[in-house]
Amino acid sequence: MSCKFNLYLLIYLRTGAVMLHLVSRCSARLFWASPRWRRTYTQGASLRLKWLGCPHHRCSPLACREYSSASGSPEVMLTPERYPVQRLPFSTVSEEDVAAFECIIPGRVVTDPEQLEACNVDWLRSVRGSSKVLLRPQTSEEVSQILRHCCKRNLAVNPQGGNTGMVGGSVPVFDEVILSTALMNKVISFHDVSGILVCQAGCVLEELSRYVQERDFIMPLDLGAKGSCHMGGNVATNAGGLRFLRYGSLRGTVLGLEVVLADGTILNCLTSLRKDNTGYDLKQLFIGSEGTLGVITAVSILCPPRPKAVNVAFLGCPGFAEVLQTFSTCKGMLGEILSAFEFMDAECMHLVGQHLHLTNPVQESPFYVLVETSGSSAGHDAEKLTSVLEQVLNSGLVSDGTMATDQKKVQMLWALRERITEALSRDGYVFKYDISLPVERLYDLVVDLRTRLGPRAKHVVGYGHLGDGNLHLNVTAEAFSQELLGALEPYVYAWTAEQRGSVSAEHGLGFKKKNVLHYSKPPEAVRLMQQLKGLLDPKGILNPYKTLPVQA
Amino acid sequence: MSCKFNLYLLIYLRTGAVMLHLVSRCSARLFWASPRWRRTYTQGASLRLKWLGCPHHRCSPLACREYSSASGSPEVMLTPERYPVQRLPFSTVSEEDVAAFECIIPGRVVTDPEQLEACNVDWLRSVRGSSKVLLRPQTSEEVSQILRHCCKRNLAVNPQGGNTGMVGGSVPVFDEVILSTALMNKVISFHDVSGILVCQAGCVLEELSRYVQERDFIMPLDLGAKGSCHMGGNVATNAGGLRFLRYGSLRGTVLGLEVVLADGTILNCLTSLRKDNTGYDLKQLFIGSEGTLGVITAVSILCPPRPKAVNVAFLGCPGFAEVLQTFSTCKGMLGEILSAFEFMDAECMHLVGQHLHLTNPVQESPFYVLVETSGSSAGHDAEKLTSVLEQVLNSGLVSDGTMATDQKKVQMLWALRERITEALSRDGYVFKYDISLPVERLYDLVVDLRTRLGPRAKHVVGYGHLGDGNLHLNVTAEAFSQELLGALEPYVYAWTAEQRGSVSAEHGLGFKKKNVLHYSKPPEAVRLMQQLKGLLDPKGILNPYKTLPVQA
Repeated sequence: MSCKFNLYLLIYLRTGAVMLHLVSRCSARLFWASPRWRRTYTQGASLRLKWLGCPHHRCSPLACREYSSASGSPEVMLTPERYPVQRLPFSTVSEEDVAAFECIIPGRVVTDPEQLEACNVDWLRSVRGSSKVLLRPQTSEEVSQILRHCCKRNLAVNPQGGNTGMVGGSVPVFDEVILSTALMNKVISFHDVSGILVCQAGCVLEELSRYVQERDFIMPLDLGAKGSCHMGGNVATNAGGLRFLRYGSLRGTVLGLEVVLADGTILNCLTSLRKDNTGYDLKQLFIGSEGTLGVITAVSILCPPRPKAVNVAFLGCPGFAEVLQTFSTCKGMLGEILSAFEFMDAECMHLVGQHLHLTNPVQESPFYVLVETSGSSAGHDAEKLTSVLEQVLNSGLVSDGTMATDQKKVQMLWALRERITEALSRDGYVFKYDISLPVERLYDLVVDLRTRLGPRAKHVVGYGHLGDGNLHLNVTAEAFSQELLGALEPYVYAWTAEQRGSVSAEHGLGFKKKNVLHYSKPPEAVRLMQQLKGLLDPKGILNPYKTLPVQA
Repeated sequence: MSCKFNLYLLIYLRTGAVMLHLVSRCSARLFWASPRWRRTYTQGASLRLKWLGCPHHRCSPLACREYSSASGSPEVMLTPERYPVQRLPFSTVSEEDVAAFECIIPGRVVTDPEQLEACNVDWLRSVRGSSKVLLRPQTSEEVSQILRHCCKRNLAVNPQGGNTGMVGGSVPVFDEVILSTALMNKVISFHDVSGILVCQAGCVLEELSRYVQERDFIMPLDLGAKGSCHMGGNVATNAGGLRFLRYGSLRGTVLGLEVVLADGTILNCLTSLRKDNTGYDLKQLFIGSEGTLGVITAVSILCPPRPKAVNVAFLGCPGFAEVLQTFSTCKGMLGEILSAFEFMDAECMHLVGQHLHLTNPVQESPFYVLVETSGSSAGHDAEKLTSVLEQVLNSGLVSDGTMATDQKKVQMLWALRERITEALSRDGYVFKYDISLPVERLYDLVVDLRTRLGPRAKHVVGYGHLGDGNLHLNVTAEAFSQELLGALEPYVYAWTAEQRGSVSAEHGLGFKKKNVLHYSKPPEAVRLMQQLKGLLDPKGILNPYKTLPVQA
């Protein structure tokens, strides 16, 4: 049985008849794009070529193509030119400061404007800072010395991981010192029985993933940006992603953190224990605080055992009600092996076809869902999934579908969902919203906005992690337009607040969303957050202008 | 197949032969104990009998017997008489205060010393406060008004749930006002598709469990004290328990909290969203802070779907190395359906036999393990578990075993593990340690202590949640002895610290362990905890003398 699944892509038709198609039928067009390479910094003076990847999908280097920072692409506006933001009275980096940094991390202080450019601009090319110095420490002790100096000198600091954030949290707003975790990329330990990984903050998620997979474990999180994002950044932004449904939040899987506080104090809570109820769980303060309370320098995380079998089904649904019922059916019948339930609408499929030339493997439908199972028995899992597919096809919840178990085919199906972000970014300027809603209202906002915006928007699309109640709502236009923005905001936030949803499900607030915090949190909560910031970073030097609204 | 499992208890022998025994063989002695009833308070003037239960095991009311607070049992020493602790300069409750409370919660202010007695003493009968007033609010607004009054008047407050804590955190140390959540016991909402439950803090875990089970879900946590413990107390102490291995920490499953701060501010973070990255996750501050930072008044929690099949195997192992190998085998072969892996040593079995007359269902062994699976397919799950049992029996990791799927038999096997706490409390004075250790060193400390203590200890036993690296180490003696305490402490803590373990895996620090925090947390962390306490509760009125060591 499992052999058959490995070799073939099964196409289920609504009639109940089963047709087999060789998967190569569509593979030729799925992965045609060209690779993306960029110059990067090394510890010494010489430069080397390093794969940078398309941060928001999981394809291998050879399967991507350049889509940003291309020479000749228009300059990104400086953040203070587009957004109303005032520089706070921090000091300016002086020659003495650069010399002091050079003493702490000799040869790893970058001041060359060309090299700084990539770290000043976010990958969406929507915000741009003007930092004059990039620091590349290798140890927590170095981070500590750097922060001690910055604190004393009142220099603002922008901690930076893989710079794959969606809300402008990972680049400076003005001239903050950029503190990169890129060279803090060592695995510290891995326990073969418990699956507990301890690593430095700058380890790239995909590399960690490979490392633990070789040892028969997997990372408890996975996201499109895996090829670039850093573990420290994942934790700092409380990244959700594609395995959230099954393995839960980083708040449960992160076992320990090492953090350097604003004044340079090293807070070592890097334990590797599943249970520890000694005092307040300080690491939780830093998970999701976007580098505003401390700089995460090392992470201890619990990795689940590598599933022995992974199946993916890609299905077409006639309506959103049917998507929801398919979800309920999957939850009930797949139980503990259900590891992802993603959805996308027809416009998403249109865009990945148009911009990335990916082929729709099933017949055209108003909605598509991707169902993934991960389990310990290929036979049992296939049996469960087959029962589900029979059920949803026979009951008309699904009009067409295809299933894969072979890793390459699984990746092809996943690419349809994961590369939507990339397709959108090629469609024009993208207004991005990442919201949590009660699952039954999840798509209403998309429908509503299409009517509201009319021809002012190029595309209004909805996709996301349905299993987590998480909608990615994206609106594209030829260019940034204040008028369109005015039609979208605060409308989208108010709509979400009315449903008691979250205006940022997993992307965080960063720079671009910090002022909408009050749509999801009451004034008492915002006040307490400000007090926590004041306690941990009294001078406010850590990632200023981010996460929290400016105090009245 | 499933039918056979329902009717029989399967006994696997090392030879590989399988013998079937009717489970009734041992049931007669498993549940003989007599019920425990106690007078309790009602809202009005009249008293009614209410089931109080044995807080630390999951049997039904009719299957337990009185084991504490029996009339004629010796008085518990007042805490300040046994422990070196000084009353802090809080105000004393005056008649005017009582009148003010009576205005806020008319008819629910208890000052009768007899009624106060049960709330002043912990269930282990190891600590005793001398509070003169017990308040029983029904709403968050009432809690807010009470705290506003106490804050203004500088009155210390002891928030109390089911009073089932192990470390003296749930009763007053001196004359703190007891703020009980017992009447805040309403379910606010339950979502039949997502499984999200929102309830008041005083809901009893077992009642919630029943409520969601009727709707085909289960609570993500389960513990011996379920019959008495309150959901708010579970969250305030970050309870671990028996489902931790499968469903993870409350830090992941609790979606929202409503908390009343020390000054009476109501902090409403009671969202029901799986994902919400808007600002700092304030609820995490209160999870596990033992009522020292705020009073939890309502909880939103994600309940997993009720598993369609539950199997329990109870196995005898010839040594601890074999216990560990059995765990590895189960993890590998049972994968996603493994829901508990508990162990106990021969002395534990001896004690549950001696004090509770439970019968050992397998042949005598140095160690016993309880393996539970929970899954969505009875057939698949039984097949997986049977393969595991064949493997561990044939390889000599297990010398004897028995398996059950029928709920009553499952409960009987669980009782052997869950009622150890109760058996210990009948054996004499119990010195309790609840520590996290690297799993391979988990039992070394027990062996070491038996040698160290010699005949000074009555019993030295080890049991616990092996799957979570959590050892419950208990030492019994005829009576409390300062000399024995001196031989145990700080030895146990230093030993644990040397292995980078936690001196409190799941019980918390409460009153009895607050001074050992530094064995598991560095000075920088303790300092930050003190600062957080200072920020959230500047007067220190919330559960004083608990969690954090006295500041130098």
